[in-house]
Amino acid sequence: MTDAGTEVLARAAWSRLAEPGDEVAGALVDTLGAVDALDWLREVAPRALAGDAVGPPAPGLSPSAVRRLSGAAARWVPRLAGLTPERDVDALHRLGGDVVVPGDRRWPRGLDDLGATSPHCLWVRGDPGLDLAGMLDRAVAVVGSRACTAYGEHVAGEVVAGLARAGWTVVSGGAYGVDAVAHRTALAVAGPTVAVLAGGVDRAYPAGNARLLAAIADGGGALVGEVPPGSIPTRSRFLQRNRLIAASSRATVVVEAAWRSGALSSASHAAALLRPVGAVPGPVTSAASAGCHRLLREGAAVCVTDAGEVLELVGGAGTHLGHAPEPAAAPTDGLTPAQRLALDALPVRQGRAADGLARVAGLSVGEIRAALGVLELRGLAERHGTGWRRGPECRRTS
Amino acid sequence: MTDAGTEVLARAAWSRLAEPGDEVAGALVDTLGAVDALDWLREVAPRALAGDAVGPPAPGLSPSAVRRLSGAAARWVPRLAGLTPERDVDALHRLGGDVVVPGDRRWPRGLDDLGATSPHCLWVRGDPGLDLAGMLDRAVAVVGSRACTAYGEHVAGEVVAGLARAGWTVVSGGAYGVDAVAHRTALAVAGPTVAVLAGGVDRAYPAGNARLLAAIADGGGALVGEVPPGSIPTRSRFLQRNRLIAASSRATVVVEAAWRSGALSSASHAAALLRPVGAVPGPVTSAASAGCHRLLREGAAVCVTDAGEVLELVGGAGTHLGHAPEPAAAPTDGLTPAQRLALDALPVRQGRAADGLARVAGLSVGEIRAALGVLELRGLAERHGTGWRRGPECRRTS
Repeated sequence: MTDAGTEVLARAAWSRLAEPGDEVAGALVDTLGAVDALDWLREVAPRALAGDAVGPPAPGLSPSAVRRLSGAAARWVPRLAGLTPERDVDALHRLGGDVVVPGDRRWPRGLDDLGATSPHCLWVRGDPGLDLAGMLDRAVAVVGSRACTAYGEHVAGEVVAGLARAGWTVVSGGAYGVDAVAHRTALAVAGPTVAVLAGGVDRAYPAGNARLLAAIADGGGALVGEVPPGSIPTRSRFLQRNRLIAASSRATVVVEAAWRSGALSSASHAAALLRPVGAVPGPVTSAASAGCHRLLREGAAVCVTDAGEVLELVGGAGTHLGHAPEPAAAPTDGLTPAQRLALDALPVRQGRAADGLARVAGLSVGEIRAALGVLELRGLAERHGTGWRRGPECRRTS
Repeated sequence: MTDAGTEVLARAAWSRLAEPGDEVAGALVDTLGAVDALDWLREVAPRALAGDAVGPPAPGLSPSAVRRLSGAAARWVPRLAGLTPERDVDALHRLGGDVVVPGDRRWPRGLDDLGATSPHCLWVRGDPGLDLAGMLDRAVAVVGSRACTAYGEHVAGEVVAGLARAGWTVVSGGAYGVDAVAHRTALAVAGPTVAVLAGGVDRAYPAGNARLLAAIADGGGALVGEVPPGSIPTRSRFLQRNRLIAASSRATVVVEAAWRSGALSSASHAAALLRPVGAVPGPVTSAASAGCHRLLREGAAVCVTDAGEVLELVGGAGTHLGHAPEPAAAPTDGLTPAQRLALDALPVRQGRAADGLARVAGLSVGEIRAALGVLELRGLAERHGTGWRRGPECRRTS
């Protein structure tokens, strides 16, 4: 076996020994390397299993760090017995997948921001030639309630279609509701999409999304997990999975979320990583938007209403998608306050002399004459008899 | 005539001479007093009308201030001729109204924050004994689009009813749409309401709201304007009126507003006065909410979804109206990560021994035993045979 192969197997082993987000395991593997860390654990296993303190794995560790390691080893050791990383990796290979480890060019750089809680490896299903790092280089997470409304489905679809058309990868969690709409819409417009799962990537969870998850793996997208094949998605793994969604993406957008929702945990992970968070507002009468409004109210998210505004979160790349609602310039745009007062004072039909206009407008005769010059040029005033009245542009726009 | 009466008439005169928001007039009246300022203007009228520079009204003014005053006097002088403040005040008295000036105990203190653009006086219609200052001491402005949707009407009604029941006065602009719903709802729940008008308070504008405006004046509320009876509401006066709405209220809430909307001008006046601004979110598919989302996105407003959240803007007085959606505490609230892992590892039916639980949970046997103690106390775990399984609380809540 090559050194690289040994490293992959050791990391695969660690991904089964330690629960996702175990920062003691992360620090140990960072310090010793995955292979030596595993050797050390095997060595101290009998003492750890007996609940005794274990010796330090490296010189220079503080007594409190060693105590912490002893406690952690006692957590990991019970799983040493059934450890078969070769079989786990083989199982994934048979599904056409591969294990990606730090240092591999396919490793998503965003995960490194997780520090000691960065996953030991990623179990990835998708096209054999898939470049996961490339896919996640320009990625936005779109997450939300499993129990989303028709409104949430509509908005998720619009946002995802816009992101995919602008060349961005859509990351989500493969769940029912907003997640499913996000993946499905990305597939429909042939955009790249990544489902980050809480359990093994061989397990279709939830079962009702089995066909969708297969379509992602077979359709140019990827299924990604940090626990080995066969692992069940527990509640803790769901919560930890949310940190991977946040870390894989440049920004996280919550489309719909109840007052208490797992989607809010993705948002808070993104915020902790200093990544932008967007929240889509909705009717205040809809409980499915209460979590989004909570994020907005607490200043934990920026209000986003379309794909263009989401892309502004990740930095300008989508400015061409910017706002359409801005109406065409009106002929009254940019008038000074005095010019506005003069315009307000102009009669519609009969002309009024400059001194009369001054009195009505509350301007001096000199100011009225200056303002009338500008208004006449813009077609907002015209001479009528010995006085002035509203011009053709007023009739056109009113 | 008493000195107080002379002061009222002089201020009534200034409210006709100078357009709302004329800060040169405000500074002049602040410096000389309304009566002396009027005397000075009459004195310099011939020179100002001829476009000549006028002498300084007080010693110590800089040449540029005097130049500015000369220009301003030329604006005011054309209106001196038709000036009849006694008739204006009489006209209001005949409608049962009164003129309120700074220094009067009925003067709303919030207006003083406007500095030189504070109105010279307020023309007020309502009950003869009306205490305008008292009404506006606890007031919130509720504003929005004339063209509001059924959603906007619903939310405006809910918010206003909650504010009124909590004893707050609702200020708005008497217009169609959100303004009308705000006034109407306040009246319906017998809450105080103030309509700040852009024209004279004798004029029902818009005409379609004539009955509503009369109901406000007759129903314990007030119609307030800063221009004399008979004055028409011009576009400039509408924009200036918005500063009065903002300054009369402790906070301004925008219920619905298009991307470009006058309601946004009230919001920006409120922000300039350092008063809180709230915006009600709505469907991103609704153009009537685009202005609210714009305020949220730009950080110019706080997201508010009900009256309780509006009252939080003005400082805690409404905390008893706080959030209902917070669900009852779950038995899993406050579990440590280890306790959660242990709970996740518990089987539903058959008991599992502590060492098996440790392996599944990724915890040491000691940690499992400690966690099981807590879970058993909470009814989340129970002994079964020689092992442990989920307790009755799990069955109850799942």
